[in-house]
Amino acid sequence: MEAMDLLLRDVTVVDPGPDRTAIRSGCDIAIRGPAIVAVEPTGQLDPAAARQIIEGTGMVAMPGLINLHAHAAMVLFRGAAEDVPLEEWFNDYIWAMEANLTPEDIYWGALLAAVEMIEGGITTVADHYFEMDQVAQAFAEAGLRAHLAWTMFGQQPAEELERAAGFAARWHGAAEGRIRVWLGPHAPYTCSLDFLEAVAREARRLGLGCHIHAAETAEQVTASLQRNGLTPIQVLERVGLMAQPLLCAHAAHVAPQDIALMAAHRVGVAHCPKTFLKLAAGIAPVVAMREAGIPVGLGTDGAASNNTLDLWEQMRLAALLQKHERQDARALPLQEALWMATGEGARALGEEGRLGRLQPGYLADLILVRVDGVHVQPLHRLEAALVYAVRASDVDTVIVNGRVVMAHRQLLTADKAEILRQAQERAARLAQRAGGRRVQTYSL
Amino acid sequence: MEAMDLLLRDVTVVDPGPDRTAIRSGCDIAIRGPAIVAVEPTGQLDPAAARQIIEGTGMVAMPGLINLHAHAAMVLFRGAAEDVPLEEWFNDYIWAMEANLTPEDIYWGALLAAVEMIEGGITTVADHYFEMDQVAQAFAEAGLRAHLAWTMFGQQPAEELERAAGFAARWHGAAEGRIRVWLGPHAPYTCSLDFLEAVAREARRLGLGCHIHAAETAEQVTASLQRNGLTPIQVLERVGLMAQPLLCAHAAHVAPQDIALMAAHRVGVAHCPKTFLKLAAGIAPVVAMREAGIPVGLGTDGAASNNTLDLWEQMRLAALLQKHERQDARALPLQEALWMATGEGARALGEEGRLGRLQPGYLADLILVRVDGVHVQPLHRLEAALVYAVRASDVDTVIVNGRVVMAHRQLLTADKAEILRQAQERAARLAQRAGGRRVQTYSL
Repeated sequence: MEAMDLLLRDVTVVDPGPDRTAIRSGCDIAIRGPAIVAVEPTGQLDPAAARQIIEGTGMVAMPGLINLHAHAAMVLFRGAAEDVPLEEWFNDYIWAMEANLTPEDIYWGALLAAVEMIEGGITTVADHYFEMDQVAQAFAEAGLRAHLAWTMFGQQPAEELERAAGFAARWHGAAEGRIRVWLGPHAPYTCSLDFLEAVAREARRLGLGCHIHAAETAEQVTASLQRNGLTPIQVLERVGLMAQPLLCAHAAHVAPQDIALMAAHRVGVAHCPKTFLKLAAGIAPVVAMREAGIPVGLGTDGAASNNTLDLWEQMRLAALLQKHERQDARALPLQEALWMATGEGARALGEEGRLGRLQPGYLADLILVRVDGVHVQPLHRLEAALVYAVRASDVDTVIVNGRVVMAHRQLLTADKAEILRQAQERAARLAQRAGGRRVQTYSL
Repeated sequence: MEAMDLLLRDVTVVDPGPDRTAIRSGCDIAIRGPAIVAVEPTGQLDPAAARQIIEGTGMVAMPGLINLHAHAAMVLFRGAAEDVPLEEWFNDYIWAMEANLTPEDIYWGALLAAVEMIEGGITTVADHYFEMDQVAQAFAEAGLRAHLAWTMFGQQPAEELERAAGFAARWHGAAEGRIRVWLGPHAPYTCSLDFLEAVAREARRLGLGCHIHAAETAEQVTASLQRNGLTPIQVLERVGLMAQPLLCAHAAHVAPQDIALMAAHRVGVAHCPKTFLKLAAGIAPVVAMREAGIPVGLGTDGAASNNTLDLWEQMRLAALLQKHERQDARALPLQEALWMATGEGARALGEEGRLGRLQPGYLADLILVRVDGVHVQPLHRLEAALVYAVRASDVDTVIVNGRVVMAHRQLLTADKAEILRQAQERAARLAQRAGGRRVQTYSL
């Protein structure tokens, strides 16, 4: 055996797959550079060949969670817009408060979010926001893997596209390959068809995918049909966005023909159930989309709607809500919920074969999770513990790209106290809504 | 100022009420014996007069959470019956596994549940199960407050009623008044009308309330209408159960006339949303019941369906699901969610004026909660943090009846390692389903 950079000892490997979850207790995991190089029964790998050893006895090792849709820096608005309907939420709160943001705010907000995500076992995040150089810098420092899109409304089409291309030139493939760039048109209801077509052309030119919001509410679908004679999903196809990789946040209101279109073009979907409950916007037909072969992963959305960036909670809600909506307790079983939070997210990002499995040859993005809490024991079924009982606070250790970013709850990559101080100091100014400015207006 | 047994220093008091949540930072709370005797700005109360001081700087102090419906010892079946519909869940799993339970199993299960509830900030639980002397003993030792009902199916009516009366004689008012006893007929679909009438008579004779399951599924309502010409809720009134205090678990499928009946008789409802999502049984019309004046509190149900005993999760789900079901983001706002988890639960138990508020004269059942985590900060609105961001693991200190049962996450009343060992040792035997025995059969 060649030298190992890191050896995780005596863990229970939980490796969710598309059809079943492989579970093996008493395993060691060897990591070299950014990759998993071996998973063997404890005793087979020589600890003396390891530069660093983490003892994992009693813990689960599983692939890191993939957060498929976030607006990380919005943690700065956590709890600032409560119990209000979507239009008011956008126009009276979020888009007014976002007008206050400076690049520095976004840097500190993204760092705070990165710490929250790491502490909760998220190793990859697809983020969609403004001032993305700041976000990329924050995530690169914190040690996360990230797929980043600079939000574009198309208010100044040429400048926005140029800015996005510049961002891609600076960051695509950066930070030891941890950062990838997508183009980020906001949504079919905020962007003109002309602009969406221009984005699709630019995506083709740059060889990048696009990350967009679509079909969030029934009203958006109605307005799109009235304006364009097309559903929002049909608009995405018509303007050419499906010719490149496409990641679609929400897709809560999709008809069978939309599902067929997304499946045919292998569009990924980020399902963010907590936001959609909270804003009373409806719940996506996840089972139907999955049955059609669409990669449906899980996202936290921003903390201004979700309040936390907890993918365990999204996994749990996704499973519970499909059972509820379909009136079928068998819907979205344990194994599928775990797969959505890991490998399915990787598929939606075009990272299948690299991310989302705990197997030799995959990137070493993985987490150790404690299952010895009184809220988890006794353990009749490990998958049930992970989907329905484990909390973000049970994540013990987080490894991204072979690097230990949190060890036994100690964050190793960022100064948590300083990040909290910065966030608290900025909060009051950011919550002001008296200026009358907005980054955008919500209207259908 | 007379001597204090306990002084909580420099906390932010969060005292949810029926109409608003009172929030005051920089307060001290004085406790004498089992009661809160003063809540004053820090500096007003003399620390030298306190036998014990707990520093709470940066923490929220709020009333302990009230778990209005549980089957505590079912933590022993956590995760043992997943992704199965209700009838299969009862007949092939739960009622078969429960046939394995010994009184000792129930004692250790109830202790494990008590620790989980204390660690998550629950100070009072209404439990409904078998071998309730064991449960009472476990809760009395662990330091919880509990309203206990011995489940009766009416298979041997006289013996069951006699056993319940004996349990009440031994435990009603015991453990410094922390234990109260209710009669526990299982449900209108499992108990005959004759037996329910006999229970109602016995409740009147003993001066006790009844805790029952009702209207869990649409099918139960249909079957009840066919059999009796009455809804399950109408059955409860007809047999006389509403003449005494009545606590009704679930009431997920209630018509307007059922709601009027419950309101007229001040029937309490225990809403257990996670179980109901998981078993795809439908969600109770909580807003409509609350508008009618029914006290609707929150319950975890048993961990065989819920997987955890986390009242924060139930509070969050209750609010999110009412928004979803009513398609109204304003439904069940923050303040009401907090009230349901505290004072409304006390009302449903007939403990209003004694429990559920953080005010002088109330029993000292309260918790300290950390709000300094990266998943909670920055704090734009404390109520939002408590409803949508705080986790059970953020509960720092738990006080019941003036006694500190957990201090800074250290459990003071039970041997956690031994409880975990006992639960783990018993788990495999309890999960066996080959015996062909069941405690009951589910059929409508």
